[in-house]
Amino acid sequence: MVTLLSQPSRLTLNGDRLNQRIEILANLGRQSSGYIRRLAFTPEDLQARQQVQTWMAQAGMTVRIDAAGNIIGRYPGQVQDAPALATGSHIDTVPSGGRFDGVLGVLAGIEAIAALQERHLRLRHPLEVIVFTDEESTMIGCQAMAGTVQARAADYHPADGTTLESCLERVGGNWDEIATALRSRSDLAAFVELHVEQGAVLEHQQRSIGVVEGVVGIRRWALSLTGEANHAGTTPMDLRHDALVAAAEITLAVRRIALQQPGNPVATVGYLNVLPNAVNIVPGRVDLSVDMRDLSCNCLHTMEQRLKQEAQGIAATHGVAITFKPLLCVEPTPAAPGIQGAIATVCDELGLSHCSLPSRAGHDALEIGRITDMGMIFVPSQAGISHSQAEYTSPEQCTQGATVLLHTFLKLDTAYPTDNAERVKSEE
Amino acid sequence: MVTLLSQPSRLTLNGDRLNQRIEILANLGRQSSGYIRRLAFTPEDLQARQQVQTWMAQAGMTVRIDAAGNIIGRYPGQVQDAPALATGSHIDTVPSGGRFDGVLGVLAGIEAIAALQERHLRLRHPLEVIVFTDEESTMIGCQAMAGTVQARAADYHPADGTTLESCLERVGGNWDEIATALRSRSDLAAFVELHVEQGAVLEHQQRSIGVVEGVVGIRRWALSLTGEANHAGTTPMDLRHDALVAAAEITLAVRRIALQQPGNPVATVGYLNVLPNAVNIVPGRVDLSVDMRDLSCNCLHTMEQRLKQEAQGIAATHGVAITFKPLLCVEPTPAAPGIQGAIATVCDELGLSHCSLPSRAGHDALEIGRITDMGMIFVPSQAGISHSQAEYTSPEQCTQGATVLLHTFLKLDTAYPTDNAERVKSEE
Repeated sequence: MVTLLSQPSRLTLNGDRLNQRIEILANLGRQSSGYIRRLAFTPEDLQARQQVQTWMAQAGMTVRIDAAGNIIGRYPGQVQDAPALATGSHIDTVPSGGRFDGVLGVLAGIEAIAALQERHLRLRHPLEVIVFTDEESTMIGCQAMAGTVQARAADYHPADGTTLESCLERVGGNWDEIATALRSRSDLAAFVELHVEQGAVLEHQQRSIGVVEGVVGIRRWALSLTGEANHAGTTPMDLRHDALVAAAEITLAVRRIALQQPGNPVATVGYLNVLPNAVNIVPGRVDLSVDMRDLSCNCLHTMEQRLKQEAQGIAATHGVAITFKPLLCVEPTPAAPGIQGAIATVCDELGLSHCSLPSRAGHDALEIGRITDMGMIFVPSQAGISHSQAEYTSPEQCTQGATVLLHTFLKLDTAYPTDNAERVKSEE
Repeated sequence: MVTLLSQPSRLTLNGDRLNQRIEILANLGRQSSGYIRRLAFTPEDLQARQQVQTWMAQAGMTVRIDAAGNIIGRYPGQVQDAPALATGSHIDTVPSGGRFDGVLGVLAGIEAIAALQERHLRLRHPLEVIVFTDEESTMIGCQAMAGTVQARAADYHPADGTTLESCLERVGGNWDEIATALRSRSDLAAFVELHVEQGAVLEHQQRSIGVVEGVVGIRRWALSLTGEANHAGTTPMDLRHDALVAAAEITLAVRRIALQQPGNPVATVGYLNVLPNAVNIVPGRVDLSVDMRDLSCNCLHTMEQRLKQEAQGIAATHGVAITFKPLLCVEPTPAAPGIQGAIATVCDELGLSHCSLPSRAGHDALEIGRITDMGMIFVPSQAGISHSQAEYTSPEQCTQGATVLLHTFLKLDTAYPTDNAERVKSEE
């Protein structure tokens, strides 16, 4: 077996097969109206999992299933006991999903390894392709690997309405052994996930590749505003306690707070419900959601403080009562600078345009980044659309993303020591 | 029969009976949870109409039903063929109504006439008490009397789901003869309606009586804003077309436009619906209502122009499409200055505090004011609440309102000529 790459930048992979396999998986769960419905743990998901394991084996990987049902394909390295370099993503979909979300990352990982295997090449490190269990709902796969699982199986609510225990059993996992799925930096040196952007930044900036700076954290609240429902004719403007007027000011404050912070945080009022919601009645109550995302914990904290302060001031001005209920709190995960640099260098060498951007959607890499160095490669999503049958990334763009993933493996193989003692020493 | 009032300011009426009768009508349609449901044309309404006719007859009135089902009780005057001075209101309720809305005006009119009849007094003019048909829904009664009925019976949608023709038949009316219900200034010299305020201005200003300046006109629109639904995480702030942000700015513009106009117009966004209305999706579409009311046509026109201009500017700023659909256009009806003056003078003579204010809810007087001199007397509504079982005006306040109505009749009897030729001459 050949062990050296004389001209690594010329190494290519089989883009046609990659794109054919994307279509093959799309047929598992495709509905007559066009979208893909392949919820985790359903028969379609089990079929797809089986198919992927077959392809892994064909690419020379040994395959195991951990206690969280994660499928781990492993391609051996030259150095015995070296920590792995891993990639992966998911193959389950949202209820009305598209063809690329998750699937691209898994199949590109398999193609990258197939490209090595077909040339009888091995890197110094073992390589892994991981299919994480149920990314779109419980995230049990990546959480188990990162040691962030919740205390009780009952805290999870699989989309099919059954228990998590029975779901895991169906995919070869075991809730009672979930702790054994935990990985660490000493056996997983780095993790790189290729994913479609699910946003329009790359398309807007006309770049082929996105170098992800990290996965943003999320702060999410439910706000309730209680004023006084009253006759829209007979209640003078100065005697009103209009919950919708207060909600409108808060909606604009949420936007202003995001625009005024450095960096490019996002903040959204996506849900807003008015009571009694009648043409001729001053609104008495409004419930609304606030969702804020950024890479920086400081930024999230500042936005949270400003939201509370401004919303309370607005409510007081209008004589409206306000409550805040936290709905979600996810800490951000930065991408390792070394991996970002490797991806950017690869793009330059391959002649692919690129830019840096945060991932503002959640990914398996969000969790894996808590235990080891993490990086992500984005390819463009047409019109920024995802979680929809209109989700689209061209075959050429898919191949480009997979090629960047392959060459990033080559770079990291050189950059990361194969000996854990060496790594610890170099970090001191 | 005595025909002169030597000390008119001492004339009183039977307040206890007035308040007892309000309770008697409240029992027709009272639900176990406390509110009153006496929709026009239902058995409860028919029962109440029968009861009121009995009381009219007891007060010495002759009773007739016109083609619109209006009950017209008439108490003769001294001068043969003099035009009538009229009062009245309605006895139907909204689906979950209170005890006073409409009922007070009808029963106070009957008590005012009973006070004269029991003292064997007649005024120069005949007096009328009118129960208008279905004020809360079709307003067919007052519209028929004012000649503002719509072309086809099918344009009306009675609350019980049947046809207007069958509804009118049930109350002794006749759609085919509806034109015969029309009245004019030559047989109706003036109309004065006593009503609960349905707002909190009198309570707030601590006044016993409101002298109504007129019934406001209404302009009402449906606005639709179409932006782009998008992922709340992956869509940067500057690439959004957020329909809710535009709707929030329009909601605040509506309020600002009303506050900046002279006078005290009101403007309300009471209905607002967000699509898809999900925590993690930038809103793609918002539908909302705008309701604007004022006494002045000029003011309504200015507010309408400003709304369109500002809303279009806001939509353009956010890259959101906007449409306006008119829902309602009611012209304002000013109260006759002479009647306003008479009511205010009566209050001063009776030692009752008063203030002037517009009526911002619709009333039968809105329509009758289109054919003859109109005035309205308001009494306070506790906390401004109406169209609710919590609607409340104290027995003392009800009696005060009825007493002001009685004495206003006495003033108008002197002020208005009994001869139409004389009136026309005095107006020249």
